[in-house]
Amino acid sequence: MRILGIDPGYGLTGFGLIESDRGQNRLLRCGVITTPPGADFSARLEMIYEDMRELLKISRPEAVSIEELFFGQNVTTGIGVAQSRGVILLAIRQAGLPVYSYKPMQVKQAVVGYGNATKHQVQDMTRRLLHLDALPKPDDAADAIAMALCHARSSTSLLAQAQQKARF
Amino acid sequence: MRILGIDPGYGLTGFGLIESDRGQNRLLRCGVITTPPGADFSARLEMIYEDMRELLKISRPEAVSIEELFFGQNVTTGIGVAQSRGVILLAIRQAGLPVYSYKPMQVKQAVVGYGNATKHQVQDMTRRLLHLDALPKPDDAADAIAMALCHARSSTSLLAQAQQKARF
Repeated sequence: MRILGIDPGYGLTGFGLIESDRGQNRLLRCGVITTPPGADFSARLEMIYEDMRELLKISRPEAVSIEELFFGQNVTTGIGVAQSRGVILLAIRQAGLPVYSYKPMQVKQAVVGYGNATKHQVQDMTRRLLHLDALPKPDDAADAIAMALCHARSSTSLLAQAQQKARF
Repeated sequence: MRILGIDPGYGLTGFGLIESDRGQNRLLRCGVITTPPGADFSARLEMIYEDMRELLKISRPEAVSIEELFFGQNVTTGIGVAQSRGVILLAIRQAGLPVYSYKPMQVKQAVVGYGNATKHQVQDMTRRLLHLDALPKPDDAADAIAMALCHARSSTSLLAQAQQKARF
């Protein structure tokens, strides 16, 4: 199964495409969609939407795994990220693909094995699970790959998926 | 000048179209875009996007005025609203229209004359400025009309507009 993981943002949106087959995972493609800081915010949203549509077309995933947002410290950044996530979800919907949302704690649980794992532990397990010498940069791409792995390792439970689908 | 005001949401998105000419304002159209609570969130975003595109096509505004988000009490609702605002901004951008963001305090300042006006005062002034016997329901539509009026009454200052445009 081809799974596209997405770490949404408006300056940098990470993506990672993996092939997951009976517990074996392979990294096929990863990177970031970037938008220029000086541009009009609506223009940046349009760039993200267009790039996402193109990415979905060329990467042909069967499912998309995207981070569920929560607002911690920086609410202003969070508002921008949420608006970006809106146009990303629209592009996925228009491509007719199923999308699954996971919280950071669920990603840690699925990838490392416990929900309080450190960022370093998540990155290290992501690297091992994909048999890589080093993780791709920037962190947004690596985080997106972890999102994809999270879905690969969670998708044994169909009930859990059904529950995820209904959420934001 | 035809101005479309928008009060973004995901359950209810208010809109109000006014014609503003040398300080005289007339209400042309208003209402709400609604999405069913039980539907998949991505499906709701797609409905809002499609309806907004249709609304822009039939209402032919020259400018769009939309509420700038801030997160107060309900952050979870705020995340949903922000994602909806993202697809709304995308539809406006794709229609090639200029969009202006105003904070609630700016709307109060422009419509009533001071930034700490009550909701009732904003509604009353909105009704008077448009020579209406009563304000349209629901509140989301009335709030959107106030957004349009805010832009009509703020747009004498081109510098202020340029500053607004660069924001979220």
